[in-house]
Amino acid sequence: MDCLSAISERFSYRGAFQDKPVSREDLTKIATAATLAPSGCNKQTTRFVIVDDAEILKQIGALHPIAAMKTARAMLMFIIDCNPEAVYQNMSFQPEDCAAAVENALLAITALGYASVWIDGALRREGRAEKIGQLLKVPEGKVVRVLLPIGVPAENGPRPDKMPLEERAWFNGYGSNS
Amino acid sequence: MDCLSAISERFSYRGAFQDKPVSREDLTKIATAATLAPSGCNKQTTRFVIVDDAEILKQIGALHPIAAMKTARAMLMFIIDCNPEAVYQNMSFQPEDCAAAVENALLAITALGYASVWIDGALRREGRAEKIGQLLKVPEGKVVRVLLPIGVPAENGPRPDKMPLEERAWFNGYGSNS
Repeated sequence: MDCLSAISERFSYRGAFQDKPVSREDLTKIATAATLAPSGCNKQTTRFVIVDDAEILKQIGALHPIAAMKTARAMLMFIIDCNPEAVYQNMSFQPEDCAAAVENALLAITALGYASVWIDGALRREGRAEKIGQLLKVPEGKVVRVLLPIGVPAENGPRPDKMPLEERAWFNGYGSNS
Repeated sequence: MDCLSAISERFSYRGAFQDKPVSREDLTKIATAATLAPSGCNKQTTRFVIVDDAEILKQIGALHPIAAMKTARAMLMFIIDCNPEAVYQNMSFQPEDCAAAVENALLAITALGYASVWIDGALRREGRAEKIGQLLKVPEGKVVRVLLPIGVPAENGPRPDKMPLEERAWFNGYGSNS
């Protein structure tokens, strides 16, 4: 799929997935896309666990109410440090590194004919990230920051409205159109 | 350009750009790609200023030593709130929203035959973000978080090594290969 088409076709899908597997070949392409994202000082801080084991998927799916989580045939976990080290001056960029990797994965998922949704804040509540970390043997000091359920969508799903470009972007000055 | 090709072709280019303009049509495509990125609760928090005015480019280029900043024929600014409001429970996701938008823009830049580099930490030092904010009339309470210089590369530029996939990603358990 063309890059600009994948960018415009990507949407957050929370509905049920079809009962069709996601091949390891495709999962490897998606994880590879994630690893190719830029990162602060090229430190490549994000780690990934790809889940396609039915029992583990069931246990993780039980932690979140949406259909996409209950029916996903695969998931991709994005893991960062709980207390990232500074990599440039006194700054670290692990949440940004992770977010860029998530976006690459979402576009690869779209290009390969699957759908997903960025699960983030929900992991930081009710001990969900910790429970998933235990299931996946994530070492101490690291945390599952983002999770993507992956599958072939069973329905169309609503595509949330986006604001018009002219309300968010301007030439040569904030709010202007010079 | 194919989506997965754009993901693997994208790299951080810090060298000089050719003296070729970046059309407003292409800049609009790049900014549109940025606005189509996912955002926490679809709040679409990032704002964008596209700079193609030669005098403003010169003033911004003077703030940073790399050739890409001195010779860019266009730049894209990513603007977020200094103190983001919570959008989900007590959480806000503006840095993540912004990072996903940056990655979309970088892929669109690559797909359209240009190159760029993610300028982030450097803006948070020596008052650079504030100086750019003044030049571009960014309102109080908002800050230029990321900047992308855009142009046609004049040289190949080094492509930083990426770690092998098996050192960053595993199936069904951290560090395992089950």
